[in-house]
Amino acid sequence: MPRNRQILLARRPLGAVRLEDFQLVTGDTPAPAEGQVLVRHRWLSLDPYMRGRMDDVPSYALPQPLGEVMLGATVAEVVESRHPRWASGDTVLGMGGWQEWSVVAGDAPGLRQVDATRVPASTYLGALGMPGVTAWWGLTRLVAAQPGQAVTVSAASGAVGSVVGVLAKARGLRVVGIAGGPEKCGYVTGELGFDACIDHRAHPDARSLAAALAQGCPGGIAGHFENVGGRVLDAVLSCIQPHGRIALCGMIAGYDGRPVPLAQPQLILSKRLRVEGFVISEHPEAWSEALPELHALVARGKLRPRETVAHGIEAAPEAFLGLLQGRNFGKQLVQLD
Amino acid sequence: MPRNRQILLARRPLGAVRLEDFQLVTGDTPAPAEGQVLVRHRWLSLDPYMRGRMDDVPSYALPQPLGEVMLGATVAEVVESRHPRWASGDTVLGMGGWQEWSVVAGDAPGLRQVDATRVPASTYLGALGMPGVTAWWGLTRLVAAQPGQAVTVSAASGAVGSVVGVLAKARGLRVVGIAGGPEKCGYVTGELGFDACIDHRAHPDARSLAAALAQGCPGGIAGHFENVGGRVLDAVLSCIQPHGRIALCGMIAGYDGRPVPLAQPQLILSKRLRVEGFVISEHPEAWSEALPELHALVARGKLRPRETVAHGIEAAPEAFLGLLQGRNFGKQLVQLD
Repeated sequence: MPRNRQILLARRPLGAVRLEDFQLVTGDTPAPAEGQVLVRHRWLSLDPYMRGRMDDVPSYALPQPLGEVMLGATVAEVVESRHPRWASGDTVLGMGGWQEWSVVAGDAPGLRQVDATRVPASTYLGALGMPGVTAWWGLTRLVAAQPGQAVTVSAASGAVGSVVGVLAKARGLRVVGIAGGPEKCGYVTGELGFDACIDHRAHPDARSLAAALAQGCPGGIAGHFENVGGRVLDAVLSCIQPHGRIALCGMIAGYDGRPVPLAQPQLILSKRLRVEGFVISEHPEAWSEALPELHALVARGKLRPRETVAHGIEAAPEAFLGLLQGRNFGKQLVQLD
Repeated sequence: MPRNRQILLARRPLGAVRLEDFQLVTGDTPAPAEGQVLVRHRWLSLDPYMRGRMDDVPSYALPQPLGEVMLGATVAEVVESRHPRWASGDTVLGMGGWQEWSVVAGDAPGLRQVDATRVPASTYLGALGMPGVTAWWGLTRLVAAQPGQAVTVSAASGAVGSVVGVLAKARGLRVVGIAGGPEKCGYVTGELGFDACIDHRAHPDARSLAAALAQGCPGGIAGHFENVGGRVLDAVLSCIQPHGRIALCGMIAGYDGRPVPLAQPQLILSKRLRVEGFVISEHPEAWSEALPELHALVARGKLRPRETVAHGIEAAPEAFLGLLQGRNFGKQLVQLD
């Protein structure tokens, strides 16, 4: 019976998340009952959406329960199976949470086998996982730009933004990223192949940022994939072209504390824009549509986004704070041994 | 050669529109050349979109030129025709502007014959004109609610809002209006047949207004037709149900002076809303689709929105100021004799 270290939500954050909002506990993992499997987590995904669930407010997902294990996607190894679908040694993608072990129903929805022999297992938490499918859906279904048009993407070096850019280039779009700092911008234009990347730290106000975006898209901006909100969204509204489409995937700028207002909502009217929020969990059909394209890009070496890896479950809270503050670089993971 | 009194844009407004922004001049109307018709304006439409055109900023329409006749829709009588399509005595809908007479090409786009024998001629500037078609498009194409669902409409007693409500009822929706003052609210629920109407003056903040809207739609708000913006849009975002759709048709709250921010744009994401701006001039196909339904409602006496009528072209600027300040009741017109 393995000892299992877990991270619980100890209290709901007041404003910015703090380490004291989490609690590390150690318990026993029960043996699997008939129909269950025991899995050992190898990789835990940390994602911005988790911040929203820490608050007890209505949103697209129920709040993370207080005093329970933090929810999260995991890649795990099957150690013991009492379900015919699974065998010891299988690698599975699931929602194991912030802990080292879990016991899960063998037929749990979302539990899927992955092939970790051809690509690193962690890829299934990034480009071949929820972030990648999120990028695919927002870009192809909501932004829906045509080849030759230009789109912009915020948090361009992140787990979602990086895939948006690679997909956009593969589809014949011009793509301009927005990221924080010269190192991330260099990665976005270098390794990821964006046409340009604007360092939002070099543009202290929305007007300046808008001018830089417009310069990066001399033919106009047809669409935008938003992961940040706040000043970035203000800037995009002021420089996007008429009939532009904006996919709202994340608004991390306002996750801590008070909502960040939108300065000029009348631009949605005067430019006849469409602004649409989405969450990929409501589009389960997206996976089968997106994964072939994502797999092909990974196999051709076009899509190997960077990862930031913390080690050991005890490191998860600090790594999560870093993610919220933009200290990570690419996909934020926790590796568990 | 008739003497023609005209209202020119004398200067661009700084903030609120003032009477001094307009100039009344008198000139001669030229005789129609071959292919032209001379028309005498009977009705001039005053509409909120005119405010936007008075500014020299990029929008969906070119700015109103300085020193030229204010643009606007008119119902006119053909006095002399040098075009085979028209004869003296015809009643035509066109864009004659803020003046008493005009000479227009007989094949000008948008010039259409109307039948003023069955319904009052002014109806073609309201329920059977641009406001009516605007209401139809936004409600049926963008809000696109299903029978039994509830929608909300701001400026519910106005030229557009009133038609939205009547169309919504005819399509089996629950509809709750927002209007300013008990008299307008009484008209909205009485003559127009809305299920309820919230007096925004009785709700000084967005939270209180949202609570009233939610109470008016106990089954949830599936969509919203926005003519006002500002506090009203803040309230709607906070009480609309997930996957709600918002058609942005007007944001008159911010037309004078500085833009009114949107307090909680993150709700577009957390509720997965779609917010879309539109202008009916970009959807010319809407007319042939909308008019049969609008005509039928007018013929059955279901759609006879109220009008506020100013008299004489010299009264147009003051009437326009009243429209921007909500002093009108229903469709604002100027009758010319």
